[in-house]
Amino acid sequence: MQLGMIGLGRMGANIVRRIVAAGHTAVGCERHPEVITGLSTELGDGFRGSTDLREFLAMLDTPRVVWVMIPAGATGAVIDQLAELLEPGDIVIDGGNSRYHDDIARAAKLDPLGLHYLDIGTSGGVFGRERGFCLMVGGEPEPFRRVEPLLQAIAPGVAAAPRTPGRTGEPGPAEQGYLHCGPAGAGHFVKMVHNGIEYGVMAAYAEGLNILHKADYGNRAASEYSAEETPLENPGYYRYDIDIAQVTEVWRRGSVVASWLLDLTAAQLHADPNLDSFGGRVSDSGEGRWTLDAAVDIGVPAPVLSAALFQRFASRGESGYADKTLSAMREAFGGHHELPGTG
Amino acid sequence: MQLGMIGLGRMGANIVRRIVAAGHTAVGCERHPEVITGLSTELGDGFRGSTDLREFLAMLDTPRVVWVMIPAGATGAVIDQLAELLEPGDIVIDGGNSRYHDDIARAAKLDPLGLHYLDIGTSGGVFGRERGFCLMVGGEPEPFRRVEPLLQAIAPGVAAAPRTPGRTGEPGPAEQGYLHCGPAGAGHFVKMVHNGIEYGVMAAYAEGLNILHKADYGNRAASEYSAEETPLENPGYYRYDIDIAQVTEVWRRGSVVASWLLDLTAAQLHADPNLDSFGGRVSDSGEGRWTLDAAVDIGVPAPVLSAALFQRFASRGESGYADKTLSAMREAFGGHHELPGTG
Amino acid sequence: MQLGMIGLGRMGANIVRRIVAAGHTAVGCERHPEVITGLSTELGDGFRGSTDLREFLAMLDTPRVVWVMIPAGATGAVIDQLAELLEPGDIVIDGGNSRYHDDIARAAKLDPLGLHYLDIGTSGGVFGRERGFCLMVGGEPEPFRRVEPLLQAIAPGVAAAPRTPGRTGEPGPAEQGYLHCGPAGAGHFVKMVHNGIEYGVMAAYAEGLNILHKADYGNRAASEYSAEETPLENPGYYRYDIDIAQVTEVWRRGSVVASWLLDLTAAQLHADPNLDSFGGRVSDSGEGRWTLDAAVDIGVPAPVLSAALFQRFASRGESGYADKTLSAMREAFGGHHELPGTG
Amino acid sequence: MQLGMIGLGRMGANIVRRIVAAGHTAVGCERHPEVITGLSTELGDGFRGSTDLREFLAMLDTPRVVWVMIPAGATGAVIDQLAELLEPGDIVIDGGNSRYHDDIARAAKLDPLGLHYLDIGTSGGVFGRERGFCLMVGGEPEPFRRVEPLLQAIAPGVAAAPRTPGRTGEPGPAEQGYLHCGPAGAGHFVKMVHNGIEYGVMAAYAEGLNILHKADYGNRAASEYSAEETPLENPGYYRYDIDIAQVTEVWRRGSVVASWLLDLTAAQLHADPNLDSFGGRVSDSGEGRWTLDAAVDIGVPAPVLSAALFQRFASRGESGYADKTLSAMREAFGGHHELPGTG
Repeated sequence: MQLGMIGLGRMGANIVRRIVAAGHTAVGCERHPEVITGLSTELGDGFRGSTDLREFLAMLDTPRVVWVMIPAGATGAVIDQLAELLEPGDIVIDGGNSRYHDDIARAAKLDPLGLHYLDIGTSGGVFGRERGFCLMVGGEPEPFRRVEPLLQAIAPGVAAAPRTPGRTGEPGPAEQGYLHCGPAGAGHFVKMVHNGIEYGVMAAYAEGLNILHKADYGNRAASEYSAEETPLENPGYYRYDIDIAQVTEVWRRGSVVASWLLDLTAAQLHADPNLDSFGGRVSDSGEGRWTLDAAVDIGVPAPVLSAALFQRFASRGESGYADKTLSAMREAFGGHHELPGTG
Repeated sequence: MQLGMIGLGRMGANIVRRIVAAGHTAVGCERHPEVITGLSTELGDGFRGSTDLREFLAMLDTPRVVWVMIPAGATGAVIDQLAELLEPGDIVIDGGNSRYHDDIARAAKLDPLGLHYLDIGTSGGVFGRERGFCLMVGGEPEPFRRVEPLLQAIAPGVAAAPRTPGRTGEPGPAEQGYLHCGPAGAGHFVKMVHNGIEYGVMAAYAEGLNILHKADYGNRAASEYSAEETPLENPGYYRYDIDIAQVTEVWRRGSVVASWLLDLTAAQLHADPNLDSFGGRVSDSGEGRWTLDAAVDIGVPAPVLSAALFQRFASRGESGYADKTLSAMREAFGGHHELPGTG
Repeated sequence: MQLGMIGLGRMGANIVRRIVAAGHTAVGCERHPEVITGLSTELGDGFRGSTDLREFLAMLDTPRVVWVMIPAGATGAVIDQLAELLEPGDIVIDGGNSRYHDDIARAAKLDPLGLHYLDIGTSGGVFGRERGFCLMVGGEPEPFRRVEPLLQAIAPGVAAAPRTPGRTGEPGPAEQGYLHCGPAGAGHFVKMVHNGIEYGVMAAYAEGLNILHKADYGNRAASEYSAEETPLENPGYYRYDIDIAQVTEVWRRGSVVASWLLDLTAAQLHADPNLDSFGGRVSDSGEGRWTLDAAVDIGVPAPVLSAALFQRFASRGESGYADKTLSAMREAFGGHHELPGTG
Repeated sequence: MQLGMIGLGRMGANIVRRIVAAGHTAVGCERHPEVITGLSTELGDGFRGSTDLREFLAMLDTPRVVWVMIPAGATGAVIDQLAELLEPGDIVIDGGNSRYHDDIARAAKLDPLGLHYLDIGTSGGVFGRERGFCLMVGGEPEPFRRVEPLLQAIAPGVAAAPRTPGRTGEPGPAEQGYLHCGPAGAGHFVKMVHNGIEYGVMAAYAEGLNILHKADYGNRAASEYSAEETPLENPGYYRYDIDIAQVTEVWRRGSVVASWLLDLTAAQLHADPNLDSFGGRVSDSGEGRWTLDAAVDIGVPAPVLSAALFQRFASRGESGYADKTLSAMREAFGGHHELPGTG
């Protein structure tokens, strides 16, 4: 089967590699010609491409399967172009990080033209090429079924994890690493919540490791406490010098918190035990915010996901004005003046 | 009636002033003689004092009322001294910020000696001299009743607030601003929870004002966004330049969030509209922490009080290691490297 | 001066009463004729009204001032009608709880017609009639200035609170209880954040009082612990039987947490000490949610405001599925089965 | 090598099974004789035991290795007995869920007697027998080294997870699933934080799945909204009927949130898609609480871990009084009465 891919960045290129490795063919569209040349050399007959959208579309067998894998901010304009150039029966896939609201609007716009739209939330990051990508799909059942052979090539496959107890017979799509989640937007909706969970899980590890990091707090002399800190009632309880890299390593085997994120954390801590190469200003992409918006819309408590998101905001200094307000209040009623520049 | 006060710092001196102003007398004990001289000059016949503990105790009528108003860390040693020097029937008051655990232990130790112990949580800060202090008392009923005339002088009195609808007849102690909360420790327990609430209330204002502070976020040009920030979907919704000093002023009259803390905030913002004189590293005293310990012990959810406490920790940089951990994870799975020194 | 009021529910009627009491006149529009009759009887010459919108508009002096005070869901349709019926120079005020997004859209729509739009966030609740309403105004400066005499009648006035230290001279609008916050939407934006703060402040008190409520936890016999509870390490620390109504009363005078909300809480607890008349399923209006949406949009940490909102969701059972998920996980790894129906 | 095990409940028996399967021998002490008989039959020559503590100790080669694996509440008394009966050079291991404070006290007490004490935090739950247990060890290096052969038999071994990139050479203890974390208490300290993280990770999944669970919220008719709920602005965004069991299954392969807890969750949802067999009153053991205590002591922000703990408290109804307080306040200022019994 054939896949057309618009955007051959890291994610797009890796998907193409998995497609070709599985015996399918791919056609690429990308404005940097050297990327196309490079992939052609690497993949041989399985791949060709063009820097021109019309030429790219002409290279595709009809009905076409066109996967758009570009930054979310640029996706809308490309899909508008495709709406004009494609023919009834063609399938457009948005595999990027669009907000699912946009999927609902796009599907409604493409449908009267006879074009099919699938939104595919794609998880796996830089490891996806080898590990396979986890695919969460929204859209109509018919185009989903049509592209299933491609999804099977991109997804990790059933062997990637031990089978869940109780599941028998022929493994279904979910067991192979891809899932039709519902109508338009459902794929990005599930991916959005996935990322919300990811924020919470990451923050849980980060907080716990921070406690281990400061487990030697009782070793400091009384004179080392800053004026802002309450001296410990029992310093003897906090005299541990924990090797956090080793702790994350030991938790990888047999513990309840074993996970892929823990594997990655153990690797990072092995390479940089004090994390000195990191600044600690943590970015957030849209999905964590959108998950919280959704929780608020439908009235679902999300204290952990929101705490994780707000911690990222705060890591970038966004609590500063609030903190100053607290200092101002404390001065007013207690006479404590917390000066600037003492940080 | 006569009050003995050990410690003539700001709080102790102001309590003495209210005592004398109400027609009682006070005897002070304080190692800085100039403080005693100063108060004697200021208060005339109503006050005398000594730098020597034994001399101070000899100046007191028996049975004595000895109020200890010194830093929590020094209180225990002074009470141990008093245990040796006082006589049966005397009353020891700890008006500082001791943990209520200590009150329970001290009362148990003083009781066999025939000495009475009262723990009095004292709120009011630097405004207490004029406004009166709110007094939360723990201990046996008999010594509480004995010192009531003194508490009435220290507390704000019934006129300090409009009477609560439904309360009629002779105003009880709570309406005068002091309350016997229960046995030993109850006063500091209630004061502890009071401070826990205080943290939460302060944080609620601080967060809201921070949102107002950034309500002009949509005015910035796209180029002004840092790489870590998601551009706004609707910048037009965030083009307000809010005068926060005026907002806190207008809320003081008629709004649901009117409070004494809001009064103080409005005053601080009027004096320093951008809060430039504050550093935003916010200290926490023990009470907020102890409140959270208590909530955990007895299984009571305290999401707001804990968020407020943790925000203070974070304002002092204590999230740094956790933030670096998040950066390390993000690099591992997504290839995003968040550098040090880019803050 | 004259005010036209559409909607004579509790809020609208109380505003009209304040207007007339201040020597202005009011014209009302309300579909229940008995309400108009009642107010006419009560207010005499100062008030007349009609059940018909056109007739109501004809009763108003031009340029008209039309205040719409009806449920947010119905406001848009009425403003659309007014857009057709009003004349250039007229002022439309939305005093309800609209989302500020709508204000921006409405002002843009009315402007080409020569109509002015003011959004006025109104705080004060059922006490507003006597206490006055706190008014947060968005819109163009000119119509704001035109209606200022009316706002002065509705607002509490400068005497409602002691003057903020440092403020001198003629009291400005904020000191009188009304404020021009910025262009269209700014009034409802500030009111929205006000309510977000309100949620946080309320939750801070509620959590603290909950801790006091369970301060007797150590009194229970070991056999009284449910299987789900960890027995206390130090039951002797939790043997207080706190009179919460009295505690809230004593905090009203001299304490740092004195506030209008505390006044109300003390009154409720005096009337119903165990709060038995309340079910504890806590509603939330839109403002708390919108505040959180705004915080997320502009990247401001709001851990306290979100915790307060989520506590309300959870009070209505919305954590149930999450809780079951936790039970399912615990069973899977630990063999603990948490049964249904044991609540 | 030989292990003595006091307590042959599920955990103790499974550890013994792994010891014997690895070619070591075990001696058990357990008050239920049928448990000893059963294990003897199952394990043959590798195991014997006694219901009598002295007899059990006599069966052990000296210097003895005595592992105590009984409920935390009973551990102290047994260790006191051992202190009297053991001989210099013997090693006592507490493999249960003791608070690390107790470890510090016990080690200090046993040391002058020439007895060694190791605290071993043990993770793995009901799967430990097959999967191996993750072991976190505190105590002196010498006894740790002595028991390493036993720990290697109990731990999962290096093959249980792919090797961390960058780790080369002979796999160290952490890579085999056991780790010497530091002096007395360090093992239980690290296990405590492990469980704190576990709470946070579990809550992250639970919240996310709860959002998926309510993703069909827009399907309900307006009449189905309760009076407490704000109607949705965009019901069309919430019309997904997500198969949550399938979603957790698809996330197991290739996604960023793949983990052992997710594996378990997928299995539980496959068996009981609506989780109807669970009540949702979630217990908490001591570790989550102690983690929070530690964070508070040393001033580390832990918003996620605390939110996870408080959600469990709330699942058991512990927010009820706080919720009623909120209802009482809302009635007071807004006239909204939230009745009991309407839940």
